Amino acid sequence: MHFFDEAMALRPLDDGSLEGTTSPAYWNMVGPYGGITAAVLLQAVWQHPQRLGEPLSITINYAVAVAEGRFRIRATPVQTNRSTQHWIVVQESTNAQGDTVVATTATVITAVRRNTWSASGSAVAPVAAAPQPPQTQPVMAALFADMQWRRQYETILLEGHLPLHWEGQESAEDRSLLWVRDVPPRPLDFPALLAMCDVFFPSILLRRATLAAFGTVTLTVYFHADATQLAAVGSDYLLGQSQGREYRNNYADDEARLWSRDGVLLATASQMLYYKQ
Amino acid sequence: MHFFDEAMALRPLDDGSLEGTTSPAYWNMVGPYGGITAAVLLQAVWQHPQRLGEPLSITINYAVAVAEGRFRIRATPVQTNRSTQHWIVVQESTNAQGDTVVATTATVITAVRRNTWSASGSAVAPVAAAPQPPQTQPVMAALFADMQWRRQYETILLEGHLPLHWEGQESAEDRSLLWVRDVPPRPLDFPALLAMCDVFFPSILLRRATLAAFGTVTLTVYFHADATQLAAVGSDYLLGQSQGREYRNNYADDEARLWSRDGVLLATASQMLYYKQ
Repeated sequence: MHFFDEAMALRPLDDGSLEGTTSPAYWNMVGPYGGITAAVLLQAVWQHPQRLGEPLSITINYAVAVAEGRFRIRATPVQTNRSTQHWIVVQESTNAQGDTVVATTATVITAVRRNTWSASGSAVAPVAAAPQPPQTQPVMAALFADMQWRRQYETILLEGHLPLHWEGQESAEDRSLLWVRDVPPRPLDFPALLAMCDVFFPSILLRRATLAAFGTVTLTVYFHADATQLAAVGSDYLLGQSQGREYRNNYADDEARLWSRDGVLLATASQMLYYKQ
Repeated sequence: MHFFDEAMALRPLDDGSLEGTTSPAYWNMVGPYGGITAAVLLQAVWQHPQRLGEPLSITINYAVAVAEGRFRIRATPVQTNRSTQHWIVVQESTNAQGDTVVATTATVITAVRRNTWSASGSAVAPVAAAPQPPQTQPVMAALFADMQWRRQYETILLEGHLPLHWEGQESAEDRSLLWVRDVPPRPLDFPALLAMCDVFFPSILLRRATLAAFGTVTLTVYFHADATQLAAVGSDYLLGQSQGREYRNNYADDEARLWSRDGVLLATASQMLYYKQ
C-alpha cells in the first residue's frame, strides 16, 4: 500500500467520527506535514456517506501540532443545497498533558458542477516555458532532506533555489517553480492534489535567507479540476508555482498554483505562515 | 450613526450567541451584500470577551442567503494558544419555510503579533502609478446602481470598466483597479476593511461580457495591517486590485489586494463565485 493511502485510512467510530493515525512517512518537525493533515481532513469529507459532489474549496486552520499516534476527525455537513454542501471539520488530538484538544479546524464546500463556459485568467501559465521532466534533474534540498515527508515527493526545482548561505542577505526574488509528484508515482485524487499545494519552500526563506522557526497557520485551496480531469493527469508530474505576497510582523502570505503538464490549472492556494522574528 | 455601524450592531443573548438585524442599506439582490455579512461575522469575534489579539485571517462560506430581518451568530473560540486563537463562527437565519438554517459559516484566526522583519512580495504595488483621488472622477456603474449596497461605497474605477454591450464578446482583460471608501467617509477598522475586500465587480463580467446569475460562495481574507496602521489610514481611500485566476464549470476564482494610499498592503483576499452557465 502507498504511504499516502495508509495516511488517508480512517476508521468509523460509533459516534459518527473517524479515527486515523499519524503517518511516520509524512512526519515534519514537530507534527505531521501540513499537507497530509489537510488531505486527511478532506478525506473525512470525501468518504462521508452524505457527501454531495466533489471538493470545491477548503480552508484548514492549524491550531495545535497533531500528536504522534491516533487522532479523531468529525466532519459535519451543516447545510446541503441543491448543488452545494457546506462542511465543518474538526480534528482532535491529545496534547503533551494528555488532554484532548482541537488540533485543526476546516471548512469545506463540495459541489455538483456542470459543464459551462470556462477560461483561464490573464496570467500566463508557466507550463509551456518550463523545462519538461524527466529531462530536468531532481534537486534535493540538502537542508530539508531530513524532513521525512519530503522523501514522499519527487521535487524538481526550476526556480526558487534555497540560499547556499544563510546570512540574511535579502533577495527580491521569492517565486518558486517546481515539478512535483508522489514517490512512488500514484494516480492523482483530491486529497493528493491538496497535499501537493503545501510542498513549496516558504517564500520567506528565499526572500530573506534567514533560518527562523516557521509553520503554516492557515491554508485555503480552490479546486478547479473534477475527478475526470484528475484521472487524466494520472501519476504524471504537476507544475507548481508559489509566490510571496507579504511578510509582516510574524506572518507571511504565500499564493500558489498547480497545473497539469498540459497546462490545466488544477488548484489555486494561499496560506499564512508564522515566522518567528 | 453610520449605516456600517448600524449593520455591525449585535445584541448578546442569554445563551452566549449574538443577535443582529440585516441592513437595508447594504442589501444586495436576494440577501445582504457578502462583504457586510463577512464583516458582521468578524464583528462577533471582535467584540467577544475572550478574544485574543487582532484578526489574522478569516474564511466565510455563504451557504444560504441571509433572510431580511433578524439573524443569530455564535462565535466559539475552539483553541487558544499563547499568541493565536482559533474560532468557528456560525450564522443562523430563517429560510422561506420558516426553518432555522445555517446561512454562513466562518473560521477566524486572531493573533498577537510582534514587530519583526517585514517586507513586501516582489509584485509591484500599483499605488504609485495610479491617478490619485480626488483628481480622478467617481464612476458609477449604471448597471449595478440599483444594488443598494453600492451606494454605501464611493468607488473610483481606474481599470476594469464594465462592458458597454453585453453581447458575450470575450476579453483577455479581467483586472479591476479602483479607489474605494465608505459613504460617508468612516475611520477604517477590521470589519470595514474586510467588507471592502468584496467590492469588486466579479472578473468574469469583464472577461466574458455576459450577464448570468453569480454570487460569492467562499471568501478568504488575510490581514496584514494592525489596528494602529488602520487608524493611520483613517477615512482615506484604499486602492483595490482584483484579478481573475480561473473560470471553470460554474465557479470563478478571483484574487484581490487592498493598499493604503501610501502603498501599505492592508489585506489580500481570494474568493470563489458561482456563475450560472
